[in-house]
Amino acid sequence: MIFKLDPQLAADTFLVGDLPLCQMLLMNDARYPWVILVPRRADITEVYQLPMQEQQLLWQESALVAEKLMILTQADKMNLAALGNVVSQLHLHHVARFKTDFAWPKPVWGQGNTEPYTALEKQQVIDSLRELFRGFFVSEQSLNL
Amino acid sequence: MIFKLDPQLAADTFLVGDLPLCQMLLMNDARYPWVILVPRRADITEVYQLPMQEQQLLWQESALVAEKLMILTQADKMNLAALGNVVSQLHLHHVARFKTDFAWPKPVWGQGNTEPYTALEKQQVIDSLRELFRGFFVSEQSLNL
Repeated sequence: MIFKLDPQLAADTFLVGDLPLCQMLLMNDARYPWVILVPRRADITEVYQLPMQEQQLLWQESALVAEKLMILTQADKMNLAALGNVVSQLHLHHVARFKTDFAWPKPVWGQGNTEPYTALEKQQVIDSLRELFRGFFVSEQSLNL
Repeated sequence: MIFKLDPQLAADTFLVGDLPLCQMLLMNDARYPWVILVPRRADITEVYQLPMQEQQLLWQESALVAEKLMILTQADKMNLAALGNVVSQLHLHHVARFKTDFAWPKPVWGQGNTEPYTALEKQQVIDSLRELFRGFFVSEQSLNL
């Protein structure tokens, strides 16, 4: 089986780049700095289904994203979650939360309506993320792990 | 600094046992099989603040809990989350979800009121969890890692 990003995830996000294991996606909701990691592996719905070595890689990439996103945004708290009740393909949310944000202190899911980025905002956020993770992305040629 | 379980977490849960890094707690909500892992480390609010070796141990313990809980309960999906907007002490939720449960497909937080276990139910669930993880708990004597 070949990895293919779930259509719902593809519709809700923008591709930022590819880490060694995961696709890095930006959630199209301007209310929160929200990055999703999706391991490029087919038919995986739970973390423990990945081989142990890939679980370790997933969490290393997750820690990298969480720490850099906290430093970039100076947020109050990182929210980390793998839920998958609607989209079962394994995906890991990283949401930088502020005590002043829309849903605080509740989790972000199901609170109000998403606020899509404008074209300008979208490009600015993607550019800043690509700058933040420069040197960590793999080139397209080396993606077939 | 010495580790001390957050008072709110202590009030909402029952102690099941101690894995090498984490306290294993049962959430006192009979609507969901819900296990929380808390690393016995003081002043940690984000996963990436742990030394890399302890991050790996945390995720190994998490994968153990997630997989065994899924096998025990035959649930439809595992929900994994480290939020911490209310209780900032790092704690990792593992909620076994069913398509027939109260909040499905929403996340469990903030949906309706908790349903505390009866004394009998509580003892039965704790006993089944202790049986499930027998051999993985550390003895009290070896807890000072």
